[in-house]
Amino acid sequence: MTNNNTLTQTKERGILIVLSGPSGVGKGTVCSALRGRTEDLIYSVSATTRTPREGEREGVNYFYRSKEQFLSMIEKDELLEWAEYVGNYYGTPKEFVVKTLDEGKDIILEIDVQGALTVKQKFPEGVFLFLLPPSFDELESRIIGRGTESEDVIADRMKAARYEMELVKHYDYAIVNDQVDLACGRIQAILTAEHCKRERFMPAIQKWLEEVY
Amino acid sequence: MTNNNTLTQTKERGILIVLSGPSGVGKGTVCSALRGRTEDLIYSVSATTRTPREGEREGVNYFYRSKEQFLSMIEKDELLEWAEYVGNYYGTPKEFVVKTLDEGKDIILEIDVQGALTVKQKFPEGVFLFLLPPSFDELESRIIGRGTESEDVIADRMKAARYEMELVKHYDYAIVNDQVDLACGRIQAILTAEHCKRERFMPAIQKWLEEVY
Repeated sequence: MTNNNTLTQTKERGILIVLSGPSGVGKGTVCSALRGRTEDLIYSVSATTRTPREGEREGVNYFYRSKEQFLSMIEKDELLEWAEYVGNYYGTPKEFVVKTLDEGKDIILEIDVQGALTVKQKFPEGVFLFLLPPSFDELESRIIGRGTESEDVIADRMKAARYEMELVKHYDYAIVNDQVDLACGRIQAILTAEHCKRERFMPAIQKWLEEVY
Repeated sequence: MTNNNTLTQTKERGILIVLSGPSGVGKGTVCSALRGRTEDLIYSVSATTRTPREGEREGVNYFYRSKEQFLSMIEKDELLEWAEYVGNYYGTPKEFVVKTLDEGKDIILEIDVQGALTVKQKFPEGVFLFLLPPSFDELESRIIGRGTESEDVIADRMKAARYEMELVKHYDYAIVNDQVDLACGRIQAILTAEHCKRERFMPAIQKWLEEVY
């Protein structure tokens, strides 16, 4: 914090931003847009057991691991969270996140609501953002779809949406995704504000108070 | 919050921002600069018993009151805080602040550290910002001045600065005033972030959750 007695609005330690929200709300789109406009923000790279696709690179798109390696990471508690989809494992390596934060850099993790809550248990000091649809009408019409689904399917989806929406209570901020640009601006503002939290300055101020008397 | 089922990133109720910090840190300069770049922010108008100066206007620069009127405002608890300087009273009328917040507008109050703490007792839901000098060296050289003051005067000023700096612990955010422009940007970001606080969306979300089942 202090360097030559200077007070800086940064970056002894980075901030972990977790961007989540209900299915289909546009987490991926917002996260990609942020990449284009925020140089100082690192994007968490997931580990996966799936095969790299054409053009994908190790450590950029994913960390590619064998199933044995992945299961060993789970066992050694090296993942902040993990899940299995259609036979492949996906997870968030803790080491990459911790290393980035230790270097004083902020890191963003885009993840579903269930994964986010797991991360919160291991990383309560993270800043948890819940992306909201522009309106409940929009949310409902996404659930109802083109009207070709059975009532049962729609009821199941509504139940899932309700469940996901209830989890907002565990989050610090809610971001309306009315326009991707506006949503990105809000996330950047939150990052700036979090760096201004008073607690971050207490060690430097405490040190000065002790030195002057 | 909701209008036609729409979720908006605003402004059922405004936010009270209290900008404070040690003497000489540049609160007034930062506040004036903010005025130039933030249209949506209302500036709290103080009441005073001093005579209007050339060009000053009632309700713009100050609310001008007689001493009797001012003392009656104190008695009726119509001021968030007040103080007396060189024979004149100055204070913050509660009504103007509450009216502005009720209209969904944000309001900023620039005030010394002692006054800010009084405001916090009456308005704990306010957002309290502590402006910091760019470095402790700068703070100390301001205290020491041009070297023409006696040791006693300097010791008194140091004591006052220490006291003011200790009060940072009651604030939500700390803003380094390294450049006025940067300080203003941080304050605007904090305002945006505060409007994204999850709590502000809970009534609308709760209402939807109750309606869909």
